[in-house]
Amino acid sequence: MGFVPIVDVLSGKHKRAKVRGWVHRKRESKTIIFVVLRDQSGLVQCAIKEGSPAWEEAKKLTVESSVEISGEVHKDKRAPGGCEIGVDKLTIVGLAERFPISRDVSEEFLRDVRHLWVRSRKLTQIFRVRSEILHAIHDFYHERGYFEIQSPSFTKSACEGGTTLFEVKYYDRKAYLSQSWQLYAEVMLPALQKIYTIAPSFRAERSRTTRHLSEYWHHEMETAWMDFDGLLRFQEDFILHLTRHVLKHCKTELKELGRDTSDMKSLKKPFIRMKYAEAIKKLGHRWGHDITDKDERKLVADAGKPVFLTHFPRDMKAFYMEPDPQDPKTVLACDLLLPGIGETTGGSCRIVKKEDLEKSMKMYKLDPKDYDWYMDLRRYGSFPHAGFGLGIERLVMWLTGTKHIMDTIPFPRTMTRLTP
Amino acid sequence: MGFVPIVDVLSGKHKRAKVRGWVHRKRESKTIIFVVLRDQSGLVQCAIKEGSPAWEEAKKLTVESSVEISGEVHKDKRAPGGCEIGVDKLTIVGLAERFPISRDVSEEFLRDVRHLWVRSRKLTQIFRVRSEILHAIHDFYHERGYFEIQSPSFTKSACEGGTTLFEVKYYDRKAYLSQSWQLYAEVMLPALQKIYTIAPSFRAERSRTTRHLSEYWHHEMETAWMDFDGLLRFQEDFILHLTRHVLKHCKTELKELGRDTSDMKSLKKPFIRMKYAEAIKKLGHRWGHDITDKDERKLVADAGKPVFLTHFPRDMKAFYMEPDPQDPKTVLACDLLLPGIGETTGGSCRIVKKEDLEKSMKMYKLDPKDYDWYMDLRRYGSFPHAGFGLGIERLVMWLTGTKHIMDTIPFPRTMTRLTP
Repeated sequence: MGFVPIVDVLSGKHKRAKVRGWVHRKRESKTIIFVVLRDQSGLVQCAIKEGSPAWEEAKKLTVESSVEISGEVHKDKRAPGGCEIGVDKLTIVGLAERFPISRDVSEEFLRDVRHLWVRSRKLTQIFRVRSEILHAIHDFYHERGYFEIQSPSFTKSACEGGTTLFEVKYYDRKAYLSQSWQLYAEVMLPALQKIYTIAPSFRAERSRTTRHLSEYWHHEMETAWMDFDGLLRFQEDFILHLTRHVLKHCKTELKELGRDTSDMKSLKKPFIRMKYAEAIKKLGHRWGHDITDKDERKLVADAGKPVFLTHFPRDMKAFYMEPDPQDPKTVLACDLLLPGIGETTGGSCRIVKKEDLEKSMKMYKLDPKDYDWYMDLRRYGSFPHAGFGLGIERLVMWLTGTKHIMDTIPFPRTMTRLTP
Repeated sequence: MGFVPIVDVLSGKHKRAKVRGWVHRKRESKTIIFVVLRDQSGLVQCAIKEGSPAWEEAKKLTVESSVEISGEVHKDKRAPGGCEIGVDKLTIVGLAERFPISRDVSEEFLRDVRHLWVRSRKLTQIFRVRSEILHAIHDFYHERGYFEIQSPSFTKSACEGGTTLFEVKYYDRKAYLSQSWQLYAEVMLPALQKIYTIAPSFRAERSRTTRHLSEYWHHEMETAWMDFDGLLRFQEDFILHLTRHVLKHCKTELKELGRDTSDMKSLKKPFIRMKYAEAIKKLGHRWGHDITDKDERKLVADAGKPVFLTHFPRDMKAFYMEPDPQDPKTVLACDLLLPGIGETTGGSCRIVKKEDLEKSMKMYKLDPKDYDWYMDLRRYGSFPHAGFGLGIERLVMWLTGTKHIMDTIPFPRTMTRLTP
């Protein structure tokens, strides 16, 4: 008989079981030792009685030791999960030294030993949900006939201004690490029309906040012939798909993380659509005033559900965004604000006409030479198109109810954190 | 009636159709204009007769212009795909300037205008297959209960020697771009046990070959409790799954690319397993001699099917590889050679015991301080585990029959190529 996952033991389908994993907790008296064993699927209590052939080995066991255990499974209401293994065989695979993580260590220490802290129930559950979200993203696009495409991380010029770009020594010259696939994605559209990516993006972010990372995972999509309303509706379907997928497939994880899922369950489309003009009125700002992180959280808290902020003033957004024909001082751009998080996606329609793009680049003081290949898209069969980008970690924060973005990625990178 | 993909027109299910795309070719006489229209799904011939309301617009059309076309669909054996649209309405969306790509341009020029060359039938078909391969990889792991996990691109120390590492200005210090997730993956295993990734890897590769890139996409997996035989069998299942998936879902693409699929169809497990000792005997080398790219291609050509090269001399491989208990001068490592390509995957069992790892690091002249967090895995509940890595682009080369690796990724990066 082979090893079985702990979740199968808890389901009660085995009378005897052979499991392997790590010692999560140990409690011992003179006549019995209780070991809570952990594998990726769950926790199970194992009891070793004095006189059992496993007794001597069990006495040696330390927290985080790896072991193989066999024994009889019996129901026990007092045991976590309702089942217990009465151990008759126990093999220590790797006896652990004294584990450095205990209840009273600091957050900073936990980040120093991140490679061990990833074993915590909290982080493990978050990463399980993260993986399921990625799966749901791939699924969503595959069902809709999209192609997964990758753009380069190395770029030559510091597009869109360079204050947050990382510089790389690229052989005998300089290169920069990409912050978005967008310009590359646009020029791919005449070949494939509907494309998406999931890739790291790099941002030399000097601010220390609970929602910024120097390296984050960036999901982006770009679609030929999509208009602004289509872009908003697509994102609604996308967020709803992910929310429902996680509700359905991550029940245990969300429960263990203490995520109150009532807002996820009641989520429905359409989301609220609010123009910038309306938002600043609510906030008491003047035209041209930035909408801060705090403002975003207020707007979405007041609304009680996701909010699309749209129609921003042109000079607050990027040069490639299409002005609204009804009100050309604003652009057809949208930020999706999620409750408790704020901005999670950002998208827009892209400028179609070459003359408009040239004018816009002049307005933004960009050198057309740096964008010649991008301009070619408008020279050779231009067409309406739109897309959006999303920070995977912010979405994980929202869906798992995690307060700090550093907990949503296994090995976070920030201005002060480059190890482990 | 909405727009339909060209593939639906060719299937003959519409009597009338509205399509949009780009002008792939144009041929004109005094009384009729033929336009071959392209969208991501295919090509269709559209005929505009003199006197039709679309005639004047059709005359203006240039190659790569974007258009919307409506008309009646009728069968025509002479038309490519067997169907033709008799156009009665034609709207030019973006009239193209004279397209710079023609039959007689150089390879180098095609790389300069890569952003336009991606529209070619060849590259489009390759990227379609590439996307389908990525989908098949995700599928394969999801079915087997694996988690998709990401490791950082920024690392502090130049592990495994630094000659091919890219250096980054990381705020006020230096960092390096990662070449493998492996050390991070190993320490994640006590949390999740079965994990995989698809992410960019960076290699400052000064050699100009047809199978190296400065940035490539790297699939890696790591599995707790997996032994060497398990690792080989897993990779066989993996390669077979991908091959069958592509055969099934990319028929049109492979046909258009002229890929002779007989080797894919006849592929079966087990693959050939050949120890290094046997390989050098066949090649006439002495013990310790490198197996070159050319050697690899010879071995796999002679075999006529994929070959696992295994049991390399220890000092030819990485410090973390487990020596073969039967023959400790060799390690439990494997390279999978594919016909025409050579090495495509590389994997190994990882050293389990702390003392063995320390001894190995001394042998490789590595500073244990740089690997303290990695060593912790052996301090706190060590266990057997194994994994492998694969270059996505090499796999795409093999499955699509592409000669040059630069054609398997949309915007290749090499020592001499950083744009577009």
